[in-house]
Parts: sequence; C-alpha cells; structure tokens
Amino acid sequence: MARPAPLTRSLTARPGFVLANQDPRSTPGFDGDKKAGVALLAETMPELADLQERLYAASTADSTATLLLVVQGMDTSGKGSIMRHVVGSLDPHGVRYTAFKAPTVAEKRHPFLWRIRNALPASGQVGIFDRSHYEDVLIGRVHNLVPPATWSRRYGQINSFEETLSRTGTTIVKVMLNLSRDEQKIRLSERLERPDKHWKYDPHDLDERERWDAYQEAYQVAVDKCSTDSAPWFVVPADRRWYARLAVQQLVVEHLRVMAPQWPPASFDLKAEKARLAQT
Amino acid sequence: MARPAPLTRSLTARPGFVLANQDPRSTPGFDGDKKAGVALLAETMPELADLQERLYAASTADSTATLLLVVQGMDTSGKGSIMRHVVGSLDPHGVRYTAFKAPTVAEKRHPFLWRIRNALPASGQVGIFDRSHYEDVLIGRVHNLVPPATWSRRYGQINSFEETLSRTGTTIVKVMLNLSRDEQKIRLSERLERPDKHWKYDPHDLDERERWDAYQEAYQVAVDKCSTDSAPWFVVPADRRWYARLAVQQLVVEHLRVMAPQWPPASFDLKAEKARLAQT
Repeated sequence: MARPAPLTRSLTARPGFVLANQDPRSTPGFDGDKKAGVALLAETMPELADLQERLYAASTADSTATLLLVVQGMDTSGKGSIMRHVVGSLDPHGVRYTAFKAPTVAEKRHPFLWRIRNALPASGQVGIFDRSHYEDVLIGRVHNLVPPATWSRRYGQINSFEETLSRTGTTIVKVMLNLSRDEQKIRLSERLERPDKHWKYDPHDLDERERWDAYQEAYQVAVDKCSTDSAPWFVVPADRRWYARLAVQQLVVEHLRVMAPQWPPASFDLKAEKARLAQT
Repeated sequence: MARPAPLTRSLTARPGFVLANQDPRSTPGFDGDKKAGVALLAETMPELADLQERLYAASTADSTATLLLVVQGMDTSGKGSIMRHVVGSLDPHGVRYTAFKAPTVAEKRHPFLWRIRNALPASGQVGIFDRSHYEDVLIGRVHNLVPPATWSRRYGQINSFEETLSRTGTTIVKVMLNLSRDEQKIRLSERLERPDKHWKYDPHDLDERERWDAYQEAYQVAVDKCSTDSAPWFVVPADRRWYARLAVQQLVVEHLRVMAPQWPPASFDLKAEKARLAQT
C-alpha cells in the first residue's frame, strides 16, 4: 500500500498511549480547518461508496472480507452524529448496524460475547457496532455489574475473540471518541435548553457524569489491554464534531483502501449472454 | 393536513388502475425536469431527517407510530438506487432494513408471512422492505412455486395482515417500480458491458425477462386485489432513475407529514436537572 493513511497513523493507540494526554480539541492527522474538514468529508463519500460496493461485490464471488466498525464513547460524545453522517452515507443493503443497549434478561443468561457474535456482519457487509462488547469492561467495570474477577477475565476473552475475527477476514476498526468533561457539560446543557433535545436527556446521564474519572480509567485500561496488532484502538478527539465525523470516515476509508476489494470476474459466458439478451 | 401531497395523489393505484396504461417515462405529480428533481431530492433531505428524528423521539414517550416502506419491482428497476439515495439518507439508528431473498429451507417451513412479521420495524423506526411478502404472489404465482389454490388465498391474507398493521400504528407505503421492457434491456446490457457491473448480472435474470408478460399480469393482480384504503399501492414510473428516487422520497415525506410526529415533553424536572448539571 503506497497510499498514505494519515488518520490511521495519527490515531492508533500504541503501547504507552495516555488518554489524558490527548487534547480532545486537537485534530491529529488533519491540518485543515472546519471548512476544509467538511469539504473532505463530502469529497470522500463517492470513494467510500465505491469501496463499499466493491467489498459487497467481491463477496458474491469468494471473498469473505468484511469490515467491522466499533464506536464507543461517553454520553454526548457524538456517536449518533457519526451514525447519521458517516454510516448514513453507506448503502444500507451492505450494512449491518447494531446498537447495543443494556443487555436484556435473555442476553444476560449467555456469555457476554454471545449477543456480539450474533450481530457480526456477513461477508461483504460493513458491520457497525454502536457501543459494543467494550461496555462489559466499561460500565461493567465502573459499576461492578459482575464481580471484578469476571470483568478482569474479559480483556483476554475480547482479545482472543477479536484475533479470531481478524484471522477469518474481518478488519476491525475500533474507535473511542475522546470527549472532554467540559464539552460534555456544554452538550448536556444544550439538551436541557432545547425542547427538541429533551427526549435525548436522561437524568441518569448525570449520575454517570459523576463517575467521569472512573470511566476515564476504564477507557485507559481497555486501550492498554486491548489495543492489539490485529485490532488496535483508534482514539479520536471528539470535542470538535466535524473532526470526529471526518476522522471516523477517513479511518474506514483508509482501511478499505488497504483491503482493496476487487470487482469479481464474470461468472458466466459474457458473449453467450449478450447474444441471448439481444434476442429478447 | 393543509399541505398538498402531489406525489401521493398522483401515484395512488385507485380502483380501475391499469398498469399497462401508465407511461414508465412519465413523471406524475412533478412538472420539473431532471435538474429540478435532483435539487428537490437534496432540498428535502433535512426535512426527512427531522421527521425521522421526531418519529423516533416520539416513540421514547408513548407513540407506537412507525412507517413501513415496501419496494417491489422487476430486476434493474432501481431498488438498489432507491436504497442508496433515499434510505441511505436516513439515520441508520432509526431504520430497520430487510432485503428478502428466496426463502431459506427454514423459512419455507413457516407460513409465508412468518419471516415478514419477524422483520417489522419497532415503534419509532422506519422499516424498509427491499422486496417483501408480495414476492409470494409475484414469483410465487408466475412460477407456481405453490399450488394456485395456495397463492390465490394469499391476497386476502396479505390484506388482513396489512390492515392489522395499519390499525396498530404502522403507516404502510407500498411502492411498485414500473419499468418498461425496453429500458430493462438497456440496463441489462449495461451490466454486460461494464466489468464493474458483471457481478450484478445473473443469467437467470434473462429467464425471468422471458416471463415479462406473466409478471406484468401478476403485478396488475396484486394492485387490483391489494391496493386497499389502509395500504394503497403507489405505482412509480421507473424509466427515469431521478424521478423514481424523488417519487419514493416524496411519498415517504408526504406520509410522515401526515403522521406529524411531535417532540415528546420532558419526562423529568427541567429546573432540578439544570441545577444538578450546574454543580458538576
């Protein structure tokens, strides 16, 4: 791959990465302003659509390649905005989107990865996890929803799971949206000020906000333990909405370029079919 | 509703509608040209996004309203294009998309509506059926996949099913893409000429093309029997791609306007929450 992948390079959480040292208002790997960022987002959409179509087309022959985008972040970090602006630009036919909420009673009867496995994209699809198995080492850890011995084991289980996925054709792009505590306050305040945002506000969000430091620690540990060669974490500064959207889009595009899906050859006799069609 | 709904009015298949009398190159309810159509499609997107968000927001309170878009049409009629350009502009969080292929062995063990019921949108979602239960009275009828006595009964079963859905809060928008035989030939030929389209071509499509008249008859009967007050058919001329996209988008928007979903009131003590947030 000769093409540069500036966002992938700039945002990969390598060993020693310290979440607290990243400025949530920074724009790593992109030196343009908002206007340039919005323009690049729009300009990239046709290429993203083309790559997605190729990925899907290749699966109709013998490719098992698939891309899985995992998005995690605190409340108001912009997951919804990324779903609308980046995922929304994909062809829904080739997308498998899953929003993971608090597990249901039925889901709790199974190992924590059970519902995750059931939501994996098929060959040729782009899978989207709006929250994911990482909730089980984030909220699960912060609230001790299970005993510490249980959540401690999960990091290793996640790594094995992701490594297997990676070996069987899934390119995993794990994005952690890094929002500042101050910016969250502004965004929660906006939800309280605007009647069209009230429905998004949940008093419970403030309870979680009070656990800010515990969550930051849980995110740091998830990055330390689960940013692997086969599935690194990408930590995206999220205080600037336009940058977060652009970064996630570029991460997806940069990975698809490396996957380089190809149009499959015709599986039929081209000349014969042309002759048949001409006669109809 | 004071607002005009020109596409809904122009495209509804009323009693006596004759499919063969509709010109597939016509643009009912829209007197602009392609440029104006493309512009209106883009202009309408923010309103569509707003209505979709309201629909979803209302479901977090006590609304059970949902919209189900059903898209049917011959091969190359543009279902994929509509999925990319119209459905793709929706927030994936609020969309439940299902492409119905030939039923699997497991699905065949159940009544034909079983897999349909399992794919219905939840409250607040927009459901998308890319093909649907109508396949069971289209290909099912043309190929006699089941005995005539069986497919004959299905029209009444479909009407009961759709009426129940409609009574329980689902607005059903059924779209039939009306493509001409000549235009299909052009589009199939394009798939044969372009290497990036070969994967979309299936020699079986030509076998189906040879049954063109039988399919047209099956579509006509489906319209005659299943264009009901609670779930009318909209027959969309599909030879002009830009018009078909625009028409489907406008049909969805016109129906959402009538549904008029409202932002739900705050479910919490606004003043108390503002005070709490200020202290964090």
